[in-house]
Amino acid sequence: MSISPGTTLRGIRDRKPLVHQITNYVVMNETANATLALGALPVMAHAGEEVEEMVGLASSLVLNIGTLSEHWVEAMLLAGGAATARGIPIVLDPVGAGATRYRTDTARRILSLADVTVVRGNAGEVATLVGADAEVRGVESISSVLEPAELARQAARTLGVVASVTGPVDHVSDGERVLAVANGHPLLATITGTGCMSTAMTGCFLAAKPDDPLEAAAEALAAFGIAAEDAAEGAGGPGTFHARLYDALYALDPATLDGRARISEL
Amino acid sequence: MSISPGTTLRGIRDRKPLVHQITNYVVMNETANATLALGALPVMAHAGEEVEEMVGLASSLVLNIGTLSEHWVEAMLLAGGAATARGIPIVLDPVGAGATRYRTDTARRILSLADVTVVRGNAGEVATLVGADAEVRGVESISSVLEPAELARQAARTLGVVASVTGPVDHVSDGERVLAVANGHPLLATITGTGCMSTAMTGCFLAAKPDDPLEAAAEALAAFGIAAEDAAEGAGGPGTFHARLYDALYALDPATLDGRARISEL
Amino acid sequence: MSISPGTTLRGIRDRKPLVHQITNYVVMNETANATLALGALPVMAHAGEEVEEMVGLASSLVLNIGTLSEHWVEAMLLAGGAATARGIPIVLDPVGAGATRYRTDTARRILSLADVTVVRGNAGEVATLVGADAEVRGVESISSVLEPAELARQAARTLGVVASVTGPVDHVSDGERVLAVANGHPLLATITGTGCMSTAMTGCFLAAKPDDPLEAAAEALAAFGIAAEDAAEGAGGPGTFHARLYDALYALDPATLDGRARISEL
Repeated sequence: MSISPGTTLRGIRDRKPLVHQITNYVVMNETANATLALGALPVMAHAGEEVEEMVGLASSLVLNIGTLSEHWVEAMLLAGGAATARGIPIVLDPVGAGATRYRTDTARRILSLADVTVVRGNAGEVATLVGADAEVRGVESISSVLEPAELARQAARTLGVVASVTGPVDHVSDGERVLAVANGHPLLATITGTGCMSTAMTGCFLAAKPDDPLEAAAEALAAFGIAAEDAAEGAGGPGTFHARLYDALYALDPATLDGRARISEL
Repeated sequence: MSISPGTTLRGIRDRKPLVHQITNYVVMNETANATLALGALPVMAHAGEEVEEMVGLASSLVLNIGTLSEHWVEAMLLAGGAATARGIPIVLDPVGAGATRYRTDTARRILSLADVTVVRGNAGEVATLVGADAEVRGVESISSVLEPAELARQAARTLGVVASVTGPVDHVSDGERVLAVANGHPLLATITGTGCMSTAMTGCFLAAKPDDPLEAAAEALAAFGIAAEDAAEGAGGPGTFHARLYDALYALDPATLDGRARISEL
Repeated sequence: MSISPGTTLRGIRDRKPLVHQITNYVVMNETANATLALGALPVMAHAGEEVEEMVGLASSLVLNIGTLSEHWVEAMLLAGGAATARGIPIVLDPVGAGATRYRTDTARRILSLADVTVVRGNAGEVATLVGADAEVRGVESISSVLEPAELARQAARTLGVVASVTGPVDHVSDGERVLAVANGHPLLATITGTGCMSTAMTGCFLAAKPDDPLEAAAEALAAFGIAAEDAAEGAGGPGTFHARLYDALYALDPATLDGRARISEL
């Protein structure tokens, strides 16, 4: 296989994989719409009564701890267990890990009880999970002592996952290779949920390229970043950028995506 | 009475009926905004402590099972019982019935314990409720063996409701008459919650025309479809279409609505 | 100190205070985005396991009872207690107080158990809390017997808070002074959550000017109203106005804000 976001996007649009998302209240509408705009099918379901059955229908599972409470943690563990048993790839977004013990502990519980394929977070969140010094304020990464490439590599090794660390430049690693992704736009930081959307996009790309999670994760970030670049053109600020971001995801052209992707191996 | 979405819309804007919605996390903001833009007043309340009191203030009740859990099911049953006792019309949106047993069973429980006036769903969901063969993937209808007009008629008879089956052309039946509604736009399928919005619109029209739920349900779909046609003009994709959809609902002109509605009796 | 929304906004953008919001499902995304667009950092967290720890990191706490249930009430009381103990300012939005007993009682419980700094509500909600005659339908204020300036003064005295009563003209009082704020736009009433957004903005301004909650509350409403005035220019209706509202909050210019604010002392 080789890196080709265009090829994977074509696969998503052809197969319309179902991406089961157990995510936070703030961004549910946004990640569902981003998933649809890209070309996959989202389903949001969190009841203990149905998550195992629902994940059995899905091609990937997205777990996002942005607004936790007890029943939601239980649902994530149930769904994560079912996905692990069936070999369905899992993306974990450890939103706010490092800000409170509850978030850090929950992210660790999910990592220990489910076979997480990709962890997608900001530097502070990922650094927290590997035990490195970091500052997280609310759900915002303030600082991390490790360089992001090294952080991604170390997180991948320590946690046994593909680590996808987003920031001004994103770094994705399986513990050996490190891919840097330089697509994106500063307006992404002015609206809530763009990190969560990039996690959902990772779930879509994983569903279409489950055998190479490192490349799938990097391709997802490149595609999402390119859509952000397109959306920023002519946007009047965060609100119109937000609306145009779905337009841009919908309009992403598989034929030009590979040429626009700024993915490099470090 | 006769079919006139313009007359009913005028009634909604004059009386501003309160439409109590117990709906899913993904679309709460969207259905509240669609309700407001149309000219009615939404209220979202789901606590067991208050749903019976709240529904007593409302002119219609919308129940939507898109993101279920135990307490929400209890709240829907409580509110449904109170609405039934007071003769307040109820619209049920069986989101994802057929995808998991929990959703199918919950929709059936609500139908058996409350006097549901209208069921608004896609073909797969409605077919599931009448026991016909259908495929539902996540919350998406994939296929149903029955023709939609026949499905609507049969669902109305079997469930004792007005059945409102949406799709490329919508079909609404009370078991005798079948109305087809041909308004709408393909962009509706590119954003999440447009089915839920059409259910909310049905609640608004029912509140203003409670004595003829068949016509109210068809008028709601025509009005919503016309708004979608207007919103699509000049939209750059799903995101700007979504924003423009509220503009279009707000700008719907009762004076031209009847002429633009493509409602036909089969 | 003196009234200067521009100075306070500059303070918000310089310090990026964390504003912890326990709010309703309908508007979570909207208040988080408004907070970000203004220049502060939102965090949404409601689990009993983490709210006390999270509020300890925050510069202000926003409590909004728009979609209550038992665990959420407990979380608000826990967070309110922790904020009180640490001297962190609290804004309460008593959404729908007066519509159901549960909402009225919950607002009163929060007021009695936490040291609320500002109550931001519509006339019907605030009148309910001071025991005056009022009509609230759903979450909409229909009428209040008191004139709004007098209502604000009386609410401030009775409840021991700064009372911020919004309407066509807003009135803010600490029981002595009454400030009227005449910024805003009628389109604000056509989308859900703009009251909740003004509460979130109050939390942001309080975070930057905790020593003068009367002025902070009035400045927040002026800034939000000015953003609405800007957003309305060129908006095609509620949906595009909504998107442009975030653009306008992001573009608010501290240098011109004081000149545009229509704050007067009664």
